[in-house]
Amino acid sequence: MASETVGVALIGSGRMGAFHAETLALRLPHARLAAVADPAPGAAERLTSALGAGRAYTDVAQLWADPDVDAVVIAAPARSHADLVVAAAAAGRHVFCEKPMAVTLPDADRAIDAARGAGVVLQVGFNRRFAADWRAARALLEAGTLGTPRLLRSLTRDPGGFDPARVLPDTIFLETLIHDFDTLRFLNPGAEAVEVSATADALVEPAWRDRGLLDTAVVTVRFDNGAMAVAEACFEAAYGYDVRGEVLGSGGMATMGDGRRSGMAFSGPAGRLVETVRGDQELFPGAYTAELGAFVEAVRTGSPAPVTGEDARAALAIALAAAESVRTGRPVRVEK
Amino acid sequence: MASETVGVALIGSGRMGAFHAETLALRLPHARLAAVADPAPGAAERLTSALGAGRAYTDVAQLWADPDVDAVVIAAPARSHADLVVAAAAAGRHVFCEKPMAVTLPDADRAIDAARGAGVVLQVGFNRRFAADWRAARALLEAGTLGTPRLLRSLTRDPGGFDPARVLPDTIFLETLIHDFDTLRFLNPGAEAVEVSATADALVEPAWRDRGLLDTAVVTVRFDNGAMAVAEACFEAAYGYDVRGEVLGSGGMATMGDGRRSGMAFSGPAGRLVETVRGDQELFPGAYTAELGAFVEAVRTGSPAPVTGEDARAALAIALAAAESVRTGRPVRVEK
Amino acid sequence: MASETVGVALIGSGRMGAFHAETLALRLPHARLAAVADPAPGAAERLTSALGAGRAYTDVAQLWADPDVDAVVIAAPARSHADLVVAAAAAGRHVFCEKPMAVTLPDADRAIDAARGAGVVLQVGFNRRFAADWRAARALLEAGTLGTPRLLRSLTRDPGGFDPARVLPDTIFLETLIHDFDTLRFLNPGAEAVEVSATADALVEPAWRDRGLLDTAVVTVRFDNGAMAVAEACFEAAYGYDVRGEVLGSGGMATMGDGRRSGMAFSGPAGRLVETVRGDQELFPGAYTAELGAFVEAVRTGSPAPVTGEDARAALAIALAAAESVRTGRPVRVEK
Amino acid sequence: MASETVGVALIGSGRMGAFHAETLALRLPHARLAAVADPAPGAAERLTSALGAGRAYTDVAQLWADPDVDAVVIAAPARSHADLVVAAAAAGRHVFCEKPMAVTLPDADRAIDAARGAGVVLQVGFNRRFAADWRAARALLEAGTLGTPRLLRSLTRDPGGFDPARVLPDTIFLETLIHDFDTLRFLNPGAEAVEVSATADALVEPAWRDRGLLDTAVVTVRFDNGAMAVAEACFEAAYGYDVRGEVLGSGGMATMGDGRRSGMAFSGPAGRLVETVRGDQELFPGAYTAELGAFVEAVRTGSPAPVTGEDARAALAIALAAAESVRTGRPVRVEK
Repeated sequence: MASETVGVALIGSGRMGAFHAETLALRLPHARLAAVADPAPGAAERLTSALGAGRAYTDVAQLWADPDVDAVVIAAPARSHADLVVAAAAAGRHVFCEKPMAVTLPDADRAIDAARGAGVVLQVGFNRRFAADWRAARALLEAGTLGTPRLLRSLTRDPGGFDPARVLPDTIFLETLIHDFDTLRFLNPGAEAVEVSATADALVEPAWRDRGLLDTAVVTVRFDNGAMAVAEACFEAAYGYDVRGEVLGSGGMATMGDGRRSGMAFSGPAGRLVETVRGDQELFPGAYTAELGAFVEAVRTGSPAPVTGEDARAALAIALAAAESVRTGRPVRVEK
Repeated sequence: MASETVGVALIGSGRMGAFHAETLALRLPHARLAAVADPAPGAAERLTSALGAGRAYTDVAQLWADPDVDAVVIAAPARSHADLVVAAAAAGRHVFCEKPMAVTLPDADRAIDAARGAGVVLQVGFNRRFAADWRAARALLEAGTLGTPRLLRSLTRDPGGFDPARVLPDTIFLETLIHDFDTLRFLNPGAEAVEVSATADALVEPAWRDRGLLDTAVVTVRFDNGAMAVAEACFEAAYGYDVRGEVLGSGGMATMGDGRRSGMAFSGPAGRLVETVRGDQELFPGAYTAELGAFVEAVRTGSPAPVTGEDARAALAIALAAAESVRTGRPVRVEK
Repeated sequence: MASETVGVALIGSGRMGAFHAETLALRLPHARLAAVADPAPGAAERLTSALGAGRAYTDVAQLWADPDVDAVVIAAPARSHADLVVAAAAAGRHVFCEKPMAVTLPDADRAIDAARGAGVVLQVGFNRRFAADWRAARALLEAGTLGTPRLLRSLTRDPGGFDPARVLPDTIFLETLIHDFDTLRFLNPGAEAVEVSATADALVEPAWRDRGLLDTAVVTVRFDNGAMAVAEACFEAAYGYDVRGEVLGSGGMATMGDGRRSGMAFSGPAGRLVETVRGDQELFPGAYTAELGAFVEAVRTGSPAPVTGEDARAALAIALAAAESVRTGRPVRVEK
Repeated sequence: MASETVGVALIGSGRMGAFHAETLALRLPHARLAAVADPAPGAAERLTSALGAGRAYTDVAQLWADPDVDAVVIAAPARSHADLVVAAAAAGRHVFCEKPMAVTLPDADRAIDAARGAGVVLQVGFNRRFAADWRAARALLEAGTLGTPRLLRSLTRDPGGFDPARVLPDTIFLETLIHDFDTLRFLNPGAEAVEVSATADALVEPAWRDRGLLDTAVVTVRFDNGAMAVAEACFEAAYGYDVRGEVLGSGGMATMGDGRRSGMAFSGPAGRLVETVRGDQELFPGAYTAELGAFVEAVRTGSPAPVTGEDARAALAIALAAAESVRTGRPVRVEK
């Protein structure tokens, strides 16, 4: 299939989905947007007509009947991901699934098994792996320059304004920190998490506390190579989006994520000011395109998916342990 | 024409041309690569077949007979630019011309008049105007935050390895510093240069001196609002590409261009290291796409071109005055 | 006494002591180095004759008989601190004590009580409070600009080369992280730690593990205002000394400690390089002078000591809880 | 004399003089403030009594009769410097003279000859040579890392609020840019300026123009090793003091002067803010102490003065050429 374009359908046309659709339609020479499926009346059609590409469906099952659909990008609500992976695999379609791929380990296993059984590509949307700073740090790790990792850090801070109706008690672990857990694994190649200790609270929105919702968390992770890591999240930063990483190894330290919107600095009466990133698509310019591009190449050429279902499962296991550590007030072993 | 895509032909398939072709073929939803013209045997065809788009011609005149060509991007050698603009205009095609649009003022006038007479869009490739740092500084100027400009600086340093066969005595002014002269005008909105004083030499390649070639130059420009500016170029920087800008106004200072390849920093035994930009397309991510995108919009919607033939002429007048200042050893008035 | 200089004796003439002696002899207009006491034969004398100031004693008790000694600076081994504070107070001398002031809470209480009872000044050597970055962050906290702290971080990394003979199992908590615990309190004004969870290991020197020594630690601290904090230490960083701080509050974030040796940057073939701090006295230029200057002012003018015995006790309580958390593998309440 | 302290008298007790007096009285172990001479009634006495050191004189001649005065620091108005150097030399006193040492070349020669004839140390107050960033860049030059300098830059921007009564037509060259001219020589070791081209104006205070006063200037300097340099000054920067340097050599680039008040950064709704330097003594922490320390060592040990009368003369020659270039509108050769 290496010489043709890959027909990709999008499942779920929300904010992230719409961005993926645009990438598929416009930015990837070897992909085409074949279809969009969204149960909300008119949603899929609005997107396909805006982009001038793809058929619009309200029922996902219609995708499986469409011969133009080689692969799907799953950007539906998190709790539906695993079932959609299984359905796509059953229909013989390659799958790119937004994180989290599943919210329980058995579901993760089901998704992995389904894709393996069907022989389809399964890639998961941990986009930071494709961001320039993180790739550069990983290259230093692979070159041995950083030596053996000893202390790691990964953090995520959103600019705030979360809708509490869309937050569940473990959202901060399963949907936000899951990125950081994957990043910590990415920055400690070959090592696996063994124990997790977490603390979390509703500090941004104290009123959430009564409903069991959390907006701020600190998670300590021990890895099987001895390395210690801290993952940290907060749903509100007054200065915008903030995603950073740090690895201290025996050979030195790499830091990632400087949060500047551009290299322009204004020096005025208050001092020197650099604008910070405000929108999540500015956060990692090129990373979303790169991850879908890698998926399309995996489909076309049979090259391995750079982020696998097993990666998704490993990050999920840390997230579940973190949530349990908060509930029990104790360190929790990470399930294999 | 707003609802259709614009058919754009590329003239000249060198390194810059090839990049523009890729942008037209892949990155701009409202453009298509209609054709490539290059007199070198096989050159145009190599490019069109690699991109899977566009007809290949060896004679520019064939473009004028191709009804699929709405507009052209001129990336041929500098000395042919003005004639190509005139020819394109005569054929009723819109024109995006790489800098310098012309190398003499009468040629610049001819090109401007031809485009105006034919009613076609004429845009010039001063890509820094589309780079994030420079746009942000301009926004501060337009908002009044920087106040009245007093001291400006713009510099260009290449990573070296220039082929002396491709360098003429005024190349440093007409092809390199022309960017900085345009930038200084962009950062001093509404003002025009009145006097130029320059010094230049062959410091990188002293052997060039006997042949009258120059690789290092400093140019001082006085503007009609009193502001003083320095433009500076060198054909070799051991650390890669370096393009920076600075405006000191009555309200503060903006600095542009930090030259970092990414936000990743490595701290090791030698200190903290940040990689610097090595390739010219990394220099201004997105700027090449943005300038062609703006051109395509101007063609589709009739919106004004953001960088005009008059802008090209004004930068050229400064470049010519700088070259004369070096020859005469005196300050030179900028021709109107 | 405001118009005279204060006679200060140094107890302990090791590396830190020698630096304090120099500060007392040369950098503080209102202090004089009155004496140096060190049991090692010749040590005190070497220092006093190098500085041309002060009497040399081998027995601390001699200080109490010297009428020229108004105050003492304790820079002897950590385990002797509390007894020395008590002895100085009993002799009516003001005390500046290097950290940790004590290694058990009862000892800390004894020292505090002795100083209070004798009516002498008792100040503790948490020098980061006097470093420019940390003072500036504290000023933002006091001005309300940062709002309520939610997430804090403080870290210490040494350049390595520790002598294992000088390391005890809790050295990393009592002598290194104690700085970070104080810093976290300093950056969360008015709040107190309630619970600590820690993990630690010998990652730099795996051979230390059998002897129960630790060189790397991560400590999570919950405060009574809900804020979560991470303190982190490692005895080896390939790039020198690294001390940083961070506060995320409801109003924004302050970061402290950029580790650059100077503002000079070298851009060369490898990229842009900034030298990092290598010596501990470069780490906080001016902070050691400022803390002793504040102590001398407290003695002369009766102004309150800026870092008290109670501050030392509070940081110690966190350190002891961290050590216990490592031993038990569980979160530990901080003793009041 | 190496074992004793050097008695230093201060001539001129203005702002800079008072700071030097403090340094002599308090910060230099091998110096003592022997006397202060200032013709303004009570001025010298105020300073000596505040510092508790030195005799107060209203007539400089009294210094020559004071056997406690081994050396003088001249911080009187610029136009009196050369005569004071000559008088001090005639009296056999070592001399540290604030810049400019003279305002005409014959005066500079007189001063140099007098010091040489009397065998006294003559050092000039180009303090940037002692600032950390500049020393570090010079070390790279001496190590060969930067290779041969090609393009240099040095700039000075004051925070504004100049008293026009204290400004003369050539003040910007003789008192401000003279620092930059010395810096350019310091950063281009062994090379000398050959030609200067300057432009200047009253852009901050347009009303000054009628009185021939200048507040903004750009000066291009060609050196005898081919290197090109730009010196730039403005009497007002909205963000405080700004002093920077830059050398591009065949081996890379060094940049100096980052203008941050501390390493603390505040990220808030407007972006990330770093405070900038506001006071001139924060500009180069330690540099004033280091230059006087070096002078005292030269007096005590006979080591050569690190900044000589010849250095002062060479910077003056550039300044005079710059002033003439502004008057004539042409490049001017630098007098030998």
